[in-house]
Amino acid sequence: MITLSSDFGTPYPAAMKGVLASGTDARLIDVSHEFPRQDVRAAAFWLREVLPHFPPAVHLVVVDPGVGTDRAALAIRAGEHVLVGPDNGVLLPAARKLADAADSEADAIEGFEYAYDDPESVTFHGRDVFAPAAATIHEAGRSQFEAGDRFGPVEAYEGLTFPDPTIREDGADGEVLVVDDFGNAITNVPGEILTERFGEAVTVNGVWAPAKRTYAMVEADNRLVTVGSHGNVELAVNQGRGDERFSVSTGSRIRLRWT
Amino acid sequence: MITLSSDFGTPYPAAMKGVLASGTDARLIDVSHEFPRQDVRAAAFWLREVLPHFPPAVHLVVVDPGVGTDRAALAIRAGEHVLVGPDNGVLLPAARKLADAADSEADAIEGFEYAYDDPESVTFHGRDVFAPAAATIHEAGRSQFEAGDRFGPVEAYEGLTFPDPTIREDGADGEVLVVDDFGNAITNVPGEILTERFGEAVTVNGVWAPAKRTYAMVEADNRLVTVGSHGNVELAVNQGRGDERFSVSTGSRIRLRWT
Amino acid sequence: MITLSSDFGTPYPAAMKGVLASGTDARLIDVSHEFPRQDVRAAAFWLREVLPHFPPAVHLVVVDPGVGTDRAALAIRAGEHVLVGPDNGVLLPAARKLADAADSEADAIEGFEYAYDDPESVTFHGRDVFAPAAATIHEAGRSQFEAGDRFGPVEAYEGLTFPDPTIREDGADGEVLVVDDFGNAITNVPGEILTERFGEAVTVNGVWAPAKRTYAMVEADNRLVTVGSHGNVELAVNQGRGDERFSVSTGSRIRLRWT
Repeated sequence: MITLSSDFGTPYPAAMKGVLASGTDARLIDVSHEFPRQDVRAAAFWLREVLPHFPPAVHLVVVDPGVGTDRAALAIRAGEHVLVGPDNGVLLPAARKLADAADSEADAIEGFEYAYDDPESVTFHGRDVFAPAAATIHEAGRSQFEAGDRFGPVEAYEGLTFPDPTIREDGADGEVLVVDDFGNAITNVPGEILTERFGEAVTVNGVWAPAKRTYAMVEADNRLVTVGSHGNVELAVNQGRGDERFSVSTGSRIRLRWT
Repeated sequence: MITLSSDFGTPYPAAMKGVLASGTDARLIDVSHEFPRQDVRAAAFWLREVLPHFPPAVHLVVVDPGVGTDRAALAIRAGEHVLVGPDNGVLLPAARKLADAADSEADAIEGFEYAYDDPESVTFHGRDVFAPAAATIHEAGRSQFEAGDRFGPVEAYEGLTFPDPTIREDGADGEVLVVDDFGNAITNVPGEILTERFGEAVTVNGVWAPAKRTYAMVEADNRLVTVGSHGNVELAVNQGRGDERFSVSTGSRIRLRWT
Repeated sequence: MITLSSDFGTPYPAAMKGVLASGTDARLIDVSHEFPRQDVRAAAFWLREVLPHFPPAVHLVVVDPGVGTDRAALAIRAGEHVLVGPDNGVLLPAARKLADAADSEADAIEGFEYAYDDPESVTFHGRDVFAPAAATIHEAGRSQFEAGDRFGPVEAYEGLTFPDPTIREDGADGEVLVVDDFGNAITNVPGEILTERFGEAVTVNGVWAPAKRTYAMVEADNRLVTVGSHGNVELAVNQGRGDERFSVSTGSRIRLRWT
């Protein structure tokens, strides 16, 4: 199986699918091609959330603001999965989580650099570099691909970590990591600190809202603060957009306080 | 085969696909993940239109404003199909149509309640409840899944019917059920009453328009009233948006009159 | 393999997938269902770019402003591929390129007219005419489908060519063919005339911009003129929208000048 992730919208992903289908009979499953444009951190967040639900696979990821520069093309083995994409950190959070889940040591992820010939284009490495690399890995086998002469070991690659929140006695200071399609603002504050407060109220940047276990526990159009499916504190509105009603967007600082 | 329908946008459906792919080798086909947000009736309308074109399959449907409340998780067998989703009526119109098409008695649809353990999240039952249920049913076989101890019979579940129009000598009174991506406003008025008027003109809420067999029979940017592929009266504009030019949206009352 | 392309958005393509899955076990791969509405030329451009990356397949294409009129339903064999869609030119540029790539003579494309019974709807031939035709061709075999009594030879069909640019000593006069999802304005000016100017600057309709090999060679939010993955001159902004910053849209005339 090969999954595909990008910020390409449409129809560029179809060219990648054509290249993949030309090189392998693997099942192709789209993760998303609507990641926020050139937002490496948002894509890294979503991949960390989504990829661990998949069985072992090759995951092709192209969110690549540096396309055509000399940043490397990476393949990272993490447990039984392999992630393929640009060396800009986008693969790392998911790779670490997949490696953890595999019961390997937390840092047992292994990187390879893919050596590619001059591609047909300098602006569409998804089609001309990464898709061929993913197809090659799938055909060689996820555990054996390093044998190929295209893949050399790398010692270092770009890292990416999410900012840490500050947990306080009276709440937490953190940041909005991403806003999902529903308008839920997902923060870096761990959900554990909120669950014991369900039923009480909190303020977020001074805005009052009840802490609730799920959306439907407040009336439609009302604000709430909850713990999302990702395990983090989330600013939401039942059947509405939390980002608008809490006046936040990706990167906004948030001050969460008990009342 | 398992089809997927939701109002999730992206990338949440990918987590469901990962869960499904972890539990079954079934083909996964997306129906849509862009149903109007938390609009159970619109999703029910589209599913009734689209699912009968599929061969027998498990249809996973997650439009679920009540996620995390105590509404049940349902599996409904209709003919050789099984629909899986929340107990809020979204499955019913499609289930009835699939049962009819199967030449069973019109009400020969059978409901099961899926008993689930405390899911990992209370806000993403698509991933944590419904996808596992759909995979389980697919693996057990659509006609045999009740044997599993997870599925118990239910006597009653939420119904959902579309409003009936009033047919008059001089036209009909009805309602816009949904607006499609083209901007065509699809009403609950049956197309039969219009087909004999093709070539004549009508008014809709006082707005004049010719009744035509297809879009291209009026000039670009001109209004028309036609019968859509769903068999209902539709308010349209050739190469434009009917909802805007007739000033209607989902739920609008419409008064259709012969001229 | 059957690929699907349309301007339908959602959920209409799912009805086509249901019809296809009812008639064949072929893999179904979406190219795009978000082609600009009823823009035959834009769809033709993208199909010419994308389809040659696929292995031999049946390509179902429904961008069809004339649905329900008497325009024919075509199947065009080009090399080992077959394209299925309306007789409005949308298939031609891709068919010519696929035939060229197959090392057949450039004009070795062969057209067939698909004779269909009165379809269930006059407004959704994608579901009622083209999807059944594509499934029939796939099941009969791409090289043998003419044997079926549904397909008759055609001598003539609608053509479609892209406008030619005027190459000048001091630049070129051309046109924006399409704008991609990133906002890159793709022109009909061949990239070859720009590549030797990389590092210099140009003007486009009087607007100054550097000519660069790739986006990241200018600062974020800065204009550039480059050669896209399609081989044509493209007006772009690094991590921004070129169409807005060059004030152009599909069909805009452009005057490219060396400085």
